[in-house]
Amino acid sequence: MVRFDCDYMAGAHPKVLDAIVRINNVQTPGYAHDSFCDEARKLIRESCGTPDAGVFFMVGGTQTNATVLDGLLPRIGGVIAVESGHINVHEAGAVEFCGHKVITLPSHQGKMCAGELRDYLYDFYADETWPFMTVPGAVYISFPTENGTIYSLQELKDLHEIAGEYNIPLFVDGARLGYGLAASPDVTLPLLAQNCDVFYIGGTKMGALFGEAVVCVNPACLKGFENLMKAHGAVLAKGRLLGVQFAQLFTDNLYMEIGRHGVELAMELRRILEAKGFRPFIDSPTNQQFFVLPNEVIDRISSGISFEYWGLRGEKESKVRFVTSWETTPEDIRALETILTNGLL
Amino acid sequence: MVRFDCDYMAGAHPKVLDAIVRINNVQTPGYAHDSFCDEARKLIRESCGTPDAGVFFMVGGTQTNATVLDGLLPRIGGVIAVESGHINVHEAGAVEFCGHKVITLPSHQGKMCAGELRDYLYDFYADETWPFMTVPGAVYISFPTENGTIYSLQELKDLHEIAGEYNIPLFVDGARLGYGLAASPDVTLPLLAQNCDVFYIGGTKMGALFGEAVVCVNPACLKGFENLMKAHGAVLAKGRLLGVQFAQLFTDNLYMEIGRHGVELAMELRRILEAKGFRPFIDSPTNQQFFVLPNEVIDRISSGISFEYWGLRGEKESKVRFVTSWETTPEDIRALETILTNGLL
Amino acid sequence: MVRFDCDYMAGAHPKVLDAIVRINNVQTPGYAHDSFCDEARKLIRESCGTPDAGVFFMVGGTQTNATVLDGLLPRIGGVIAVESGHINVHEAGAVEFCGHKVITLPSHQGKMCAGELRDYLYDFYADETWPFMTVPGAVYISFPTENGTIYSLQELKDLHEIAGEYNIPLFVDGARLGYGLAASPDVTLPLLAQNCDVFYIGGTKMGALFGEAVVCVNPACLKGFENLMKAHGAVLAKGRLLGVQFAQLFTDNLYMEIGRHGVELAMELRRILEAKGFRPFIDSPTNQQFFVLPNEVIDRISSGISFEYWGLRGEKESKVRFVTSWETTPEDIRALETILTNGLL
Amino acid sequence: MVRFDCDYMAGAHPKVLDAIVRINNVQTPGYAHDSFCDEARKLIRESCGTPDAGVFFMVGGTQTNATVLDGLLPRIGGVIAVESGHINVHEAGAVEFCGHKVITLPSHQGKMCAGELRDYLYDFYADETWPFMTVPGAVYISFPTENGTIYSLQELKDLHEIAGEYNIPLFVDGARLGYGLAASPDVTLPLLAQNCDVFYIGGTKMGALFGEAVVCVNPACLKGFENLMKAHGAVLAKGRLLGVQFAQLFTDNLYMEIGRHGVELAMELRRILEAKGFRPFIDSPTNQQFFVLPNEVIDRISSGISFEYWGLRGEKESKVRFVTSWETTPEDIRALETILTNGLL
Repeated sequence: MVRFDCDYMAGAHPKVLDAIVRINNVQTPGYAHDSFCDEARKLIRESCGTPDAGVFFMVGGTQTNATVLDGLLPRIGGVIAVESGHINVHEAGAVEFCGHKVITLPSHQGKMCAGELRDYLYDFYADETWPFMTVPGAVYISFPTENGTIYSLQELKDLHEIAGEYNIPLFVDGARLGYGLAASPDVTLPLLAQNCDVFYIGGTKMGALFGEAVVCVNPACLKGFENLMKAHGAVLAKGRLLGVQFAQLFTDNLYMEIGRHGVELAMELRRILEAKGFRPFIDSPTNQQFFVLPNEVIDRISSGISFEYWGLRGEKESKVRFVTSWETTPEDIRALETILTNGLL
Repeated sequence: MVRFDCDYMAGAHPKVLDAIVRINNVQTPGYAHDSFCDEARKLIRESCGTPDAGVFFMVGGTQTNATVLDGLLPRIGGVIAVESGHINVHEAGAVEFCGHKVITLPSHQGKMCAGELRDYLYDFYADETWPFMTVPGAVYISFPTENGTIYSLQELKDLHEIAGEYNIPLFVDGARLGYGLAASPDVTLPLLAQNCDVFYIGGTKMGALFGEAVVCVNPACLKGFENLMKAHGAVLAKGRLLGVQFAQLFTDNLYMEIGRHGVELAMELRRILEAKGFRPFIDSPTNQQFFVLPNEVIDRISSGISFEYWGLRGEKESKVRFVTSWETTPEDIRALETILTNGLL
Repeated sequence: MVRFDCDYMAGAHPKVLDAIVRINNVQTPGYAHDSFCDEARKLIRESCGTPDAGVFFMVGGTQTNATVLDGLLPRIGGVIAVESGHINVHEAGAVEFCGHKVITLPSHQGKMCAGELRDYLYDFYADETWPFMTVPGAVYISFPTENGTIYSLQELKDLHEIAGEYNIPLFVDGARLGYGLAASPDVTLPLLAQNCDVFYIGGTKMGALFGEAVVCVNPACLKGFENLMKAHGAVLAKGRLLGVQFAQLFTDNLYMEIGRHGVELAMELRRILEAKGFRPFIDSPTNQQFFVLPNEVIDRISSGISFEYWGLRGEKESKVRFVTSWETTPEDIRALETILTNGLL
Repeated sequence: MVRFDCDYMAGAHPKVLDAIVRINNVQTPGYAHDSFCDEARKLIRESCGTPDAGVFFMVGGTQTNATVLDGLLPRIGGVIAVESGHINVHEAGAVEFCGHKVITLPSHQGKMCAGELRDYLYDFYADETWPFMTVPGAVYISFPTENGTIYSLQELKDLHEIAGEYNIPLFVDGARLGYGLAASPDVTLPLLAQNCDVFYIGGTKMGALFGEAVVCVNPACLKGFENLMKAHGAVLAKGRLLGVQFAQLFTDNLYMEIGRHGVELAMELRRILEAKGFRPFIDSPTNQQFFVLPNEVIDRISSGISFEYWGLRGEKESKVRFVTSWETTPEDIRALETILTNGLL
């Protein structure tokens, strides 16, 4: 079985795993107050060009989104996101659990439109009754989005500028950040850092066993955050595990290399599917590829390839998603081609 | 100035105020454990034909919605409402403050479509990843809706049946219940009670100084509710004030009489506006009337009549709302007619 | 039956009730944006000598405590209170419901000791692991306390100074403020305002039908508070009811007069009980009086006088509480004396 | 430097680490829906003698305590714990963050007294005003306690019986469970499972990289728990990491062996300290040892041995804690003896 279900099916990239093994017997203080975490923070700050940024390590994406937003938002402030935003659909209401409404704007293949954000904020405060509505306290976007799409640098700048006009932070969910950066013609890690207030560098889907690194660029944000993390149950006792993984990912450009690897194989996969006459229903340049396939084809190839339905199975054809990652090999892609070819005979 | 801004601009209906004054010196235990509250509970149960219903008194609508939903929903369950639902737009995120997501369906002039509810629930559980999404734990509708529209008895039955199939309660926000019942050809208080699990009888907008009476028809719901009310700060020390007002409202049919009065004058107001050539943008049979008026006309009549914009002022014409209530008099309607006539000269 | 159960058994002081009746037909905007509330704010600011203080009206004490503390505290900050503090024992966990721990110090007849507060705060930050503990974000005291005792001006100054050293606000629960001020040799409303950051002026127990007026002296506190109030369900639609009551209470010194009346009768009650040989177990100078009575005596007088047990009934004798208020009359006190005398024959 | 600071300074027990490495390239579904987790659940159920128990894996202790208690408690129920309970002092208010009060009973060297629990519950419901207080909804104890002490089987039975009388679950925090079981003369894993409703088997401090296994013995508890876990951000994407570690820990008795190892070395450490004339201030039979040492001695040995102050440093002597674990070697103990001997010369 060749698996394209998701980007977190195996363990860690070999180099990351080696790093964990290597320090196994070293004793350090707990809770990310150790030299490995310090090293990782230093490397991340250097890569981002943000020498003064706060860097915090957490274990998973939902935990990170909920804790960061709880730190960014006023007590009952809401967060603006697109309808397809991960926090709005696939985190079991973790943001609302913390008391915050997710205010939704339309999703444009996963992306937020700067003009719509501007209109929303303008209209909100133009309505005299706004103190009786949920006050927007942050903007949440994903890079890449849940649909695999990416923002251009200008789009990021626009969103950041509008949020800034209303004095609310822009938070970027980077669960798959490396794949997004690898696909982008103009957004780099330093440019991302310059055009938002807080973002996180996803590890779980990028070759780590687990872990997400929050980069707080705007020093006005996330004060007292370690205390909040603890209250969220989001402080790992052996925090060094997060430090050593991120230190490795940010050594010798490994993080970006993993991103490129995933994207290259995704493009190859896309070419194969297109060559067979299938068309993507979303134009994604990253490691997630979205195609409509006839149910017959799906059924024939499913004994050899695994992937996910995107929504419910349709009557005759269905939307499906293929995901590549650091784990995917060129052999996997060739196997997919073979199986698909046979399935279409 | 003749005021059609809202239905809570003055104090209480004279009979309600008299009742408060009459018992002012009577000493009773606090927290709604008194004979006036007992009397009100008895009268409400009789009017609803629900001898065993739980009846709880709270002070205002947002408090009631948030507390009831917090009592109905599982810890992190969400509540399904239409986008225009009061809990979704005008309660400052009070439901999310309690940890619960408001899951939105389309609004059809304020109403939820039973078919859309059915589809939503079916699709939700058809998606294997549902445990990672917000589990729907209640359905919220308003009768009448925020747009003044009302559900037919069959529509109520359908919604209740579908919610019941998924074992989730149907909660009806009755902030303006009396106006809705007065306008309905087939829904009565007992029939409402038979076709939902919990509802509340609005007092604030129906002639009380303040107060809403929650009727819990389904005995499986709202266990330990008084404790939850206290934690929400929703227990009035001199609870008797709520009891005496509702006892009066449910004596000699006063509550229904107030409803009819408001609706009759609203229909008169509508006829006048239509006779002048204006058309309602929502077909509301209750005490809220929604019209599009040219800005010029609005500006000319605003020195004599007050009413609210419904959304932002448009460029040439704007949506506005006129509200009648127990306070509105036939003289008010005639004054409106005169002012409007003069404004159109 | 002569009742000394509590200070909220009847309706409103006649002058307060009259004011409500007088404006019943006046139409005003809702939500405390009306001239009666403006007038009340002005009168309260004048009485407190705080021309710039924020003044907010809420309905009841638990609601006020929870909402104010939720506004004062950081997201997961805790509030320091004595063990007997109302928020710690009799509000059903309303503060914790909002996510905040109540951190307890010992109660000295209801009062917090400044030295113990200082030690607590010093030790807290001396412990390097403090980010993993609940960070204290406010200090809560009651004036008078739940035990009827009052702080001296110097005690208030000391608590305020210590809290200020740690940059955390001092919040004073004034549910029975008028009785406390009437009993105090040195604390006045302006001096209270100078020696805390936020306090509230209780109305419910001081002659109002309901209502508490929050006075926010420190302009750094309670920003965006109206929005938070709405999310707590703590905004009264007909807010004018709160305004007109407080305007009346702060006209012609009525609030202080009510306080003095309650305290004078409480002192008379105390003298009677002491003359009969009973001793108070708390030395309260305010409208609550705490005595140990033999169960035999309790049983004999209970047919004519009502009062509350303070804790559980003991084997031979029990702690009980007598409360006077604006409702209590000199005749009530004489009746108590007669019944007691007969009960002891 | 020989380290006795805590039991989570290094990585994982070699066998556990090997297991993680071994499966690194195996692809599995995420979120603990994989064969390694299934295997771990099976082994844990067998070890506990509870074939039908629910077993859930989480990452850390604070997360586990907060999520389990949030699942066990009614919406605003409180949890009874001793004052020194970890949830009360060292989890940054994570339980209150979820809306639940921690109701404290006295700590007897870390333990809860069954008689005091009984009295508390009896008195609570004897007070008629209980609906206005925080209703106790669960009992929390630690085995071993934060002070290293353990409950006897009879003590566990008593606590469980009392909680059962009031229909509230007993939850046992087993962050260091293996050390407690190794030290106990009569409590075994099956007997623990028989005498509580939910407990967790700590991994982080027992040789895992991270991870805690919740065992839900009482089928009435923790319904819909996976959804709640997600909302708490407590579902690990690569859940298999938890499964493979616990499967290893419950193979060939490794978990108990680690427990015995830690306890044996702790007893050896204790003998050494006692032989030097020091006395423990808590009589702990487990892997934490608590001694009072003169500051002079502390200062002399601190260059070679690390350990923690237990509270603040005293003027002349201080309370300190030594912790052994699976990482501690007999050589570490001998080194401690040597350094101590030299320090006392």
